[in-house]
Amino acid sequence: MQTLLSDHGVVLSIVLGAVGLIFALFLIRFVLAADAGDSKMREIALAIQEGASAYLHRQVVAVSLISVVVVVGIWFLRDTPTAVGFVVGSVCSMAAGYIGMIVAVRANVRTAQAASVSSHSALQVAFNGGAVTGLLVVGLGLLSVGTFYLISLKVSGSPKVAIDSLVGLALGSSLISVFARLGGGIYTKAADVGADLVGKMEQNLHEDDPRNPATIADNVGDNVGDCAGMAADVFETYAVSLIGGVLVGFLTAGGYANAMVFPFVICGLSIIGALLGVAFVNFTSLNPTRSLVGGVVVSGLVSAIMLFPATQAMFPTAMEIAGKSVGSTQLYFCILVGIAMTFASVWITNYFTSTAHRPVRRIAKASETGHATNIIAGISTGHHATLAPVLCIVGSIWICYSQADLYGVAVAVVSMLSLSGIIISLDAFGPITDNAGGIAVMSGLDPKVRQITDELDAVGNTMKAVTKGYAIASAGLAAMVLFGSYVYELNAHLGREFAFDLMDPRVMIGLFVGGLLPFSFTAYAMDAVGSAAGAVVNEVRRQIGLHPGILDGTDKPEYKHCVDIVTKAALRQMVLPALLPVIFVVVMAFMGPEALGGVLVGTIVTGLFVGIAMTSSGGAWDNAKKFVEDGNHGGKGSLAHRASVTGDTVGDPYKDTAGPAVNPMIKVVNILAILIIPIIFEAANH
Amino acid sequence: MQTLLSDHGVVLSIVLGAVGLIFALFLIRFVLAADAGDSKMREIALAIQEGASAYLHRQVVAVSLISVVVVVGIWFLRDTPTAVGFVVGSVCSMAAGYIGMIVAVRANVRTAQAASVSSHSALQVAFNGGAVTGLLVVGLGLLSVGTFYLISLKVSGSPKVAIDSLVGLALGSSLISVFARLGGGIYTKAADVGADLVGKMEQNLHEDDPRNPATIADNVGDNVGDCAGMAADVFETYAVSLIGGVLVGFLTAGGYANAMVFPFVICGLSIIGALLGVAFVNFTSLNPTRSLVGGVVVSGLVSAIMLFPATQAMFPTAMEIAGKSVGSTQLYFCILVGIAMTFASVWITNYFTSTAHRPVRRIAKASETGHATNIIAGISTGHHATLAPVLCIVGSIWICYSQADLYGVAVAVVSMLSLSGIIISLDAFGPITDNAGGIAVMSGLDPKVRQITDELDAVGNTMKAVTKGYAIASAGLAAMVLFGSYVYELNAHLGREFAFDLMDPRVMIGLFVGGLLPFSFTAYAMDAVGSAAGAVVNEVRRQIGLHPGILDGTDKPEYKHCVDIVTKAALRQMVLPALLPVIFVVVMAFMGPEALGGVLVGTIVTGLFVGIAMTSSGGAWDNAKKFVEDGNHGGKGSLAHRASVTGDTVGDPYKDTAGPAVNPMIKVVNILAILIIPIIFEAANH
Repeated sequence: MQTLLSDHGVVLSIVLGAVGLIFALFLIRFVLAADAGDSKMREIALAIQEGASAYLHRQVVAVSLISVVVVVGIWFLRDTPTAVGFVVGSVCSMAAGYIGMIVAVRANVRTAQAASVSSHSALQVAFNGGAVTGLLVVGLGLLSVGTFYLISLKVSGSPKVAIDSLVGLALGSSLISVFARLGGGIYTKAADVGADLVGKMEQNLHEDDPRNPATIADNVGDNVGDCAGMAADVFETYAVSLIGGVLVGFLTAGGYANAMVFPFVICGLSIIGALLGVAFVNFTSLNPTRSLVGGVVVSGLVSAIMLFPATQAMFPTAMEIAGKSVGSTQLYFCILVGIAMTFASVWITNYFTSTAHRPVRRIAKASETGHATNIIAGISTGHHATLAPVLCIVGSIWICYSQADLYGVAVAVVSMLSLSGIIISLDAFGPITDNAGGIAVMSGLDPKVRQITDELDAVGNTMKAVTKGYAIASAGLAAMVLFGSYVYELNAHLGREFAFDLMDPRVMIGLFVGGLLPFSFTAYAMDAVGSAAGAVVNEVRRQIGLHPGILDGTDKPEYKHCVDIVTKAALRQMVLPALLPVIFVVVMAFMGPEALGGVLVGTIVTGLFVGIAMTSSGGAWDNAKKFVEDGNHGGKGSLAHRASVTGDTVGDPYKDTAGPAVNPMIKVVNILAILIIPIIFEAANH
Repeated sequence: MQTLLSDHGVVLSIVLGAVGLIFALFLIRFVLAADAGDSKMREIALAIQEGASAYLHRQVVAVSLISVVVVVGIWFLRDTPTAVGFVVGSVCSMAAGYIGMIVAVRANVRTAQAASVSSHSALQVAFNGGAVTGLLVVGLGLLSVGTFYLISLKVSGSPKVAIDSLVGLALGSSLISVFARLGGGIYTKAADVGADLVGKMEQNLHEDDPRNPATIADNVGDNVGDCAGMAADVFETYAVSLIGGVLVGFLTAGGYANAMVFPFVICGLSIIGALLGVAFVNFTSLNPTRSLVGGVVVSGLVSAIMLFPATQAMFPTAMEIAGKSVGSTQLYFCILVGIAMTFASVWITNYFTSTAHRPVRRIAKASETGHATNIIAGISTGHHATLAPVLCIVGSIWICYSQADLYGVAVAVVSMLSLSGIIISLDAFGPITDNAGGIAVMSGLDPKVRQITDELDAVGNTMKAVTKGYAIASAGLAAMVLFGSYVYELNAHLGREFAFDLMDPRVMIGLFVGGLLPFSFTAYAMDAVGSAAGAVVNEVRRQIGLHPGILDGTDKPEYKHCVDIVTKAALRQMVLPALLPVIFVVVMAFMGPEALGGVLVGTIVTGLFVGIAMTSSGGAWDNAKKFVEDGNHGGKGSLAHRASVTGDTVGDPYKDTAGPAVNPMIKVVNILAILIIPIIFEAANH
């Protein structure tokens, strides 16, 4: 085993990545083989598919144009391998989102049909639809990073060049995922908020009422935002963590080849865990929540068990890292910390966003006294929700550092992210059931079907919040790794030791400017949703004004117009905030390496809090509304209900646009800084 | 002049501080000499006075108990001079708030009476009532710090001991002001929100309707929060900046005695500027805004002009600080930066919170589509509002550092804060006119009186926002100074050079934990308002339920009960958040000096953004409501108006409780860290 892992660890992980992809193909066949319902259902599903494809197609075109500029820049200013890496990263990130979404928009109608048979078969179709995305992300991630690493190692013969080009790949995937998260996030929330503002508030229509001209756009949004955007985001997180692990292995323990191979092995073996987790959900018939959580537990346990002998085999003797003696015991301990972080972040997010616990119930109770108290309670919940994850992150850094210096932290991050496969499966399951419910209502299926999809949707809501908490918490842990990579790269390129002392005014200035970025970024992201939603409101009002028959069902609304408007608005509005991190890094780079280092850390420090607070508040508001709708505090139609709808609407851009986009934004800042070192600082040095 | 300033600079500044206090006495006489109106007005004013005194009395008792524990701790663990300093700082901070408030609750009824004569005489009474607080804060600050410094210098014969005991004074004033800001903030907003929730929402009563049992508590709140709490806060900011300047002078340029005297001279001469500014407002008859802004300009100009020859006289030859040659030109430049920062922060806050500009109008427009869009627009405005102040702070740090290293930044901070006298006068003017309006309505004066006080109140709203922006911006600038003091003290005490490198995991852990503090702190502060407001709502409902005659005026509400309830709730709820910074610092100190250093900087980085965002959002929501009430977007009674009231209510704890309390909280963290060095680290070192 030792030879296999040490000499062929990367190849092995590529093979396992391919196995994940094959399994994903198998799941796609399973989903497509399911009954797609009657012609009415197919028609609606087709409209959603077309809208989603049309949007994603245009997003790909728009983002490709921007990427071409970046690639040319990298190619001129750095080198060909890095530029090729950027292209590979961008293409894979887009592909993960694209394919996942194509499957999801086919799984939705089949889930609706399956729900008319039984709750369990609906869960199975929806979950497998989501699992396609989960396996795609990890399989594609491992395959692309591994293959690209091996090829560039072979071609250049230098691990340094191979790793540099991996940084290009990381930047490609991060930049794409900022666009995907923002564009998708703006789309989904503009359509959702716009549809609700006119539909629910002005015309008293229910959610997904086919008379609402924005209802198809709303359903499209679930797919392009929660599905494609999320997939690109987690692909980025996964790839960047893996690359960060390899990079730190090279920089801190370059003398030990296995230090670079180890991250691949962790990710590769965890794919087996993910497959068994998916199998667990398929072959047991517990209630939905238990079934899904069980899948995560199985996946984590399998990974933990398999990684024990693997670690021992790869590190039979201790390495020396930064004066510490680091052996298999230390490294395995760091792996356990990463897996524990996953469970902790799932548990904490669940506590703050599920209807079963105090925070959500407190918001629901506060709704009794009106809109304002609901909002205050929701915001304070978000602020409270930062405590536990940050203490976990801090504790993990402390432990891993003491075990194996920076490399230990990198191993923990890789092991945390190696569970992405199963975690994303849970997340992608949400929008599928959400859509299934929409299709059920629009095609006039038995209300029982909607009831089943609604139950699954409530589970999906919490799972969606959990994934966001997981992604942003991993960003906090990865912070140390990415900043460390920046510093090591800097020292290596400029040939001297840099210090980033807080007493250096340049570092302090960097911290403030970096801290500013998440605030400006989220402000623009929220504005974008507001203005795009305004466009939807105007269009819906226009249609209803022109054809009043829409409301009594004698006239058909033009869904396509709304889809078009949101598509254009989302693409236009995503550009400025997505370019903000790029502008900040490039401008601050001219203040020197110390200031730029401050920017990286400043962005992480405020970004972590802003990200956690926003996604937690949003998730809590959403479920507080659901809790009131379940008949608490007066139930539907009461003042408390109206107040809780306000909270949910405020939470929409919080949890689905601005909040989750902070994670890839932090990464763009960090990776771009690493990439820019030889361009700006070396030039200035000569 | 050179001998006068160099040899007797501190004495001169004490004399000028005394002049400020004498002028304040003169203004008190002016206010008390004004007509206090008819018996009905006096009766209402008396109820407000009694409520305010009762609250403040109990707050003093509660805070004194806590302070005694702290003093004993300091006395045991450090030394007598520091403990005495703590007592002096606490007493002066309380006194500034107490006396200012006593005058304000007498100025309110006289302003109402003066408003029945003319707008200008109302402005004069209200402004002079506020100017008492302004002059008290700077006079008392300069007198206490100067006298205490001279005495401890004389007694100990060592500048080191004298400066150490000044740190005690700084901690005393900071800790008191956290309590005062929180207690007062919780009081005023719990009463305000509680009164509005039942009065406006349930019973359709107007603001200040005497039938609302919580209306007196609401008016008391303006005085204990916006007046006493604010005075303690700015006293703290003023004293800490002055002490920080002296401390940095000693630590970086200890060989030059004038470096320590200079901060006193800046503050002393600026008192003359403040007096002339107050005179300007009294002796010109422009419109209220121009008159007040004119006062600030006069005050700033006078200071800038006087400080030019003073700087030249004190530094005829250059000092050497950290390898830089620092002469009068460099130092005067830093003074100008400080004054420019004041004007910039006034201008920026005004832009984001005045009805005349885009941000507030955008929120008002967003109210048309309902509560949720109003909230989203308000929050995004707060995030946007962080950009300009932070860039100004960063620019100032950059410039001053290049001129005179850390001492340059300290000089800029002192010069910025030296304008406190006139800035607080503007702020304290707000609650007086607010109360005057309340008294006018409750005692049934001519509606024209209310119109005049309303106009002044709108001006007061912006001025209140401006002061908060000024205080938190100064905290950002002071950050560098306080952290620098911590590091120099550490190096001096432990006899070696400490580094706070971002690559050190302890520093990174400290940054995260420090960054957490403002989020947890504001979460608890918001919760406190929510729960105290809930208690008010229940009491008002109880009274109206028991005596329905209250609503038609046949029964008199029991104002005292509401006052009692808010008093108790505010005092109980302020303790936990106020102690949070103390707990964080003490616990993290055990992780060592590096982690604690990270905590200081982390708190400043996120605290600055949270503070600016919250106070700006709150101010903007408030004035967006006023803008709608002026007849825009449908005016009073429209959906937009209801939405804007929601925004205003959310903004209440934002701008008056949680947001402004962040400033003194940051200071407590920093000063406590400085004070704790010899207690924990030296002990650990031996």
